Amino acid sequence: MERRYRLVLACPDRVGIVAMVSNFISSHGGSISDANQHSDPTTGWFFMRVEIGAVTLPFSLDELREAFTPIAQSFNMTWNMADSSEPKRVILMASKESHCLADLLYRYSSKELFCEIPCVISNHDDLRSMVEWHDIPYHHVPVDKDNKQPHFDKVQSLIEEYEADAIVLARYMQILPPALCDIYPFRIINIHHSFLPSFAGAKPYHQAHERGVKLIGATCHYVTQDLDAGPIIDQDVTRISHRDLPEEMVRLGRDVEKTVLSRGLRWHLEDRVLVHGNKTVVFN
Amino acid sequence: MERRYRLVLACPDRVGIVAMVSNFISSHGGSISDANQHSDPTTGWFFMRVEIGAVTLPFSLDELREAFTPIAQSFNMTWNMADSSEPKRVILMASKESHCLADLLYRYSSKELFCEIPCVISNHDDLRSMVEWHDIPYHHVPVDKDNKQPHFDKVQSLIEEYEADAIVLARYMQILPPALCDIYPFRIINIHHSFLPSFAGAKPYHQAHERGVKLIGATCHYVTQDLDAGPIIDQDVTRISHRDLPEEMVRLGRDVEKTVLSRGLRWHLEDRVLVHGNKTVVFN
Amino acid sequence: MERRYRLVLACPDRVGIVAMVSNFISSHGGSISDANQHSDPTTGWFFMRVEIGAVTLPFSLDELREAFTPIAQSFNMTWNMADSSEPKRVILMASKESHCLADLLYRYSSKELFCEIPCVISNHDDLRSMVEWHDIPYHHVPVDKDNKQPHFDKVQSLIEEYEADAIVLARYMQILPPALCDIYPFRIINIHHSFLPSFAGAKPYHQAHERGVKLIGATCHYVTQDLDAGPIIDQDVTRISHRDLPEEMVRLGRDVEKTVLSRGLRWHLEDRVLVHGNKTVVFN
Amino acid sequence: MERRYRLVLACPDRVGIVAMVSNFISSHGGSISDANQHSDPTTGWFFMRVEIGAVTLPFSLDELREAFTPIAQSFNMTWNMADSSEPKRVILMASKESHCLADLLYRYSSKELFCEIPCVISNHDDLRSMVEWHDIPYHHVPVDKDNKQPHFDKVQSLIEEYEADAIVLARYMQILPPALCDIYPFRIINIHHSFLPSFAGAKPYHQAHERGVKLIGATCHYVTQDLDAGPIIDQDVTRISHRDLPEEMVRLGRDVEKTVLSRGLRWHLEDRVLVHGNKTVVFN
Repeated sequence: MERRYRLVLACPDRVGIVAMVSNFISSHGGSISDANQHSDPTTGWFFMRVEIGAVTLPFSLDELREAFTPIAQSFNMTWNMADSSEPKRVILMASKESHCLADLLYRYSSKELFCEIPCVISNHDDLRSMVEWHDIPYHHVPVDKDNKQPHFDKVQSLIEEYEADAIVLARYMQILPPALCDIYPFRIINIHHSFLPSFAGAKPYHQAHERGVKLIGATCHYVTQDLDAGPIIDQDVTRISHRDLPEEMVRLGRDVEKTVLSRGLRWHLEDRVLVHGNKTVVFN
Repeated sequence: MERRYRLVLACPDRVGIVAMVSNFISSHGGSISDANQHSDPTTGWFFMRVEIGAVTLPFSLDELREAFTPIAQSFNMTWNMADSSEPKRVILMASKESHCLADLLYRYSSKELFCEIPCVISNHDDLRSMVEWHDIPYHHVPVDKDNKQPHFDKVQSLIEEYEADAIVLARYMQILPPALCDIYPFRIINIHHSFLPSFAGAKPYHQAHERGVKLIGATCHYVTQDLDAGPIIDQDVTRISHRDLPEEMVRLGRDVEKTVLSRGLRWHLEDRVLVHGNKTVVFN
Repeated sequence: MERRYRLVLACPDRVGIVAMVSNFISSHGGSISDANQHSDPTTGWFFMRVEIGAVTLPFSLDELREAFTPIAQSFNMTWNMADSSEPKRVILMASKESHCLADLLYRYSSKELFCEIPCVISNHDDLRSMVEWHDIPYHHVPVDKDNKQPHFDKVQSLIEEYEADAIVLARYMQILPPALCDIYPFRIINIHHSFLPSFAGAKPYHQAHERGVKLIGATCHYVTQDLDAGPIIDQDVTRISHRDLPEEMVRLGRDVEKTVLSRGLRWHLEDRVLVHGNKTVVFN
Repeated sequence: MERRYRLVLACPDRVGIVAMVSNFISSHGGSISDANQHSDPTTGWFFMRVEIGAVTLPFSLDELREAFTPIAQSFNMTWNMADSSEPKRVILMASKESHCLADLLYRYSSKELFCEIPCVISNHDDLRSMVEWHDIPYHHVPVDKDNKQPHFDKVQSLIEEYEADAIVLARYMQILPPALCDIYPFRIINIHHSFLPSFAGAKPYHQAHERGVKLIGATCHYVTQDLDAGPIIDQDVTRISHRDLPEEMVRLGRDVEKTVLSRGLRWHLEDRVLVHGNKTVVFN
């Protein structure tokens, strides 16, 4: 894939946004490889993602940002610009369950996911060997009910030390403190199981089994202060039957979880997910 | 399809059930065309469905029932026997929305659903022409908040008059009174929309749109006193995106609803759905 | 839905296409409601679809076309402009099987498909009553192996008489003569069954049953001289098992066929399908 | 999961098979946990799979086999009996591509797949480290066009040395010689890509891209002398669009391949796949 600059933006809808953006690009000789726009009539908001052939522009990414800033300001844009050749730095956080972690590590090491994984953080030591085999540092930061704040302080200092662009909760199983959620808005990605209907409380697969549901699913979302209710990036389901005991449902649910999480992360890494309010626009 | 007797049964699990049932069949020369068993370790309950070539047995259905009764009693079975050549009588109930009704009528008239539809009952007159074109009587039984009891009395008398084996709420949009639910246990089938997560209250598609969900679905279930919480027969979902406004979601939801409802009804008509407690075993 | 002009275009890719098109729109005060672009690196071709709020432009559709023509010429565009408030005229052609026809008629009459159906043409008289109930003229144009040319002459004269924008072969079961295919390029839509692997020759469901396939599907495509090999608009599959005899597979296949056909037609009606060479770009 | 004996059998259909089998089981106090039967009217053949609680029988597996043999003979059964607590020995064969191998190794090491993997055989050395990290011997058996027979002789001697019950071609990319296929009937499992329509020859994803297909898939099947045409165990597809270049299609295809292969292998390990002629009955 040739190197591209990716511009994503959101702003109040009005006449001339696309013209202004595309003029800006073409007036510098930039070639648009891929583009999506969406205008949401219920909010009056406009969303756009453009991929520009980097070699067609006489700019570095920083120069491009600077040149685009006046346009962004005149339209009150929330915007971002990224270089497709610069991998994002993604910290994975896990607990004891390995399915999501193993899947992401495989996709990373096989270069299917384009990113760097500077480290893995876990509150247990169980998955160290798997992680270290991939030549990735493993930080065991234990947590119990009496040391939550020190635990999260350590987590935060690791995030800062490794300069993470994104944090993936790959079955991390701990609730992040609100303050931590606020520091990294729309940069922390979580996966959790989902059902029709929903089940609150413990042992959701057992509840789903008792209810006799025929589908089980998973939701990948950005983490906000509102537990498990941040902007949804992707969802999927799989079919079950009366033959599936709770442990079978857990097994099938794991496959959905890892599929949905890796897909959501991929879209995030490719700057395809825009957030407005509590929902996403996914240009995939 | 050759004529078959269908035996479905549920009973506490113990040694020898299959042997007793299959001995009974083979000792009379009966040929088993299709059979399913399921033993549920969480409840200790056993479920079975057998299709027997009718011509291979020297019995009428009534004689078969009588001959089988002692076995059923000795195992404390809940059981049922049906003749595949005798169509069940299914009353459809609708309101103003036509998508489920039209779909069921088409599958009925094209002989894809093997049943009789002795009449359609609706609280509105809008769908009369569509129904009467299929040569099916249409009963307009209006309802408003002041005449609910007379309305449901009339509905019940029609169900009895037409000797319905099953009642399908094809977007009927009225809550059946508990007493009526109890008269026809596991014979009233409903369809309603479903989401991950669930949304309570009015305008669920608008809520789902605001929440930015990526899947919408539908659940087909037997009606019990517990509103929308009876045993689930089938579920399915379809994918949506940020481009789908609530009215698009409604349109896509209609396709899921009619697919799931017709599939659930088919399984019911073929005696594939066994209920135990509040969940189903579906031998499909 | 507010009235919109839809512009779709394809041309050799180069710098400045989006800028030129969006400038043209915004310089007249036009508001872009929805837009998609695609640049295909394997062909060097560029594709674009724009929806413009009609009330935001001081043009009739004809004036818009005239104003846009110089731009289109300078970029060597293949292009089309449509008014979302003007329904396309779609002739349905059928034979004896009713599933696709009934589905399309229902979606038409419930206003889910926005189009006019000026007539239905069939080589059999079986489906007349169903069609006429929808107040649509039904033309029975018999065909046998000795009168193919007169049959297709009559079909063509009906297409011209009714000024069809599109023709849908809803299980029409006759091979159109090449000359007829050429007159209406990318305006004739067909549906046919598809399998993995493919089966040539008669009774494909029986072949698929013998081969023990686990999925059956359908493909919706534009009709070209190359039988069943025109540009693919949409495909889908459904799962089957060893329990499904060929007649069950046919039944399940019908559901896939009607789903895929109605989806393909919808995209065609909304000007979402662009053809280049023998493949489509579907902006859905 | 409690220990179970699994009996699978196929024989010409006639009255009394289920009765005889279930009598045999219950007369020894055996409890049936799960059972499936299928009678195929197109071939006149009967298929059955029974899971029996092992502790409920006064037999070892060998004694059970001996006791059942007369019944099997009297019905001309092809049959097999397995102990659910005895893992099958599965040799994985790979080449350079790691996606299927990594997926199977993960499911093995996480105990999701119940089997032993005595060794991995590859014609390249690339995947040695991944395999050895799982404490599994890795045999690099090179092959080129001049040493095919020695290569396959070595492969066969490894299969025999390790006493493999099953061989999985996890993207092994070499055509097994017919003689080798014949030695292990319905014990060698392969995965390959599948499309609607099919594409013969090299670079199928490029062909599919040129054809503009909207679905790509994979088929898991037993290997027979008839290349890629053995009995199908499972199939699945995933959706693609015009945006997906061949390399994207390859990436998406990998996910389908590993999903279908691991599912097919699971069913094989659980003795759920019966073969008759060139097709399977899958009791899942």
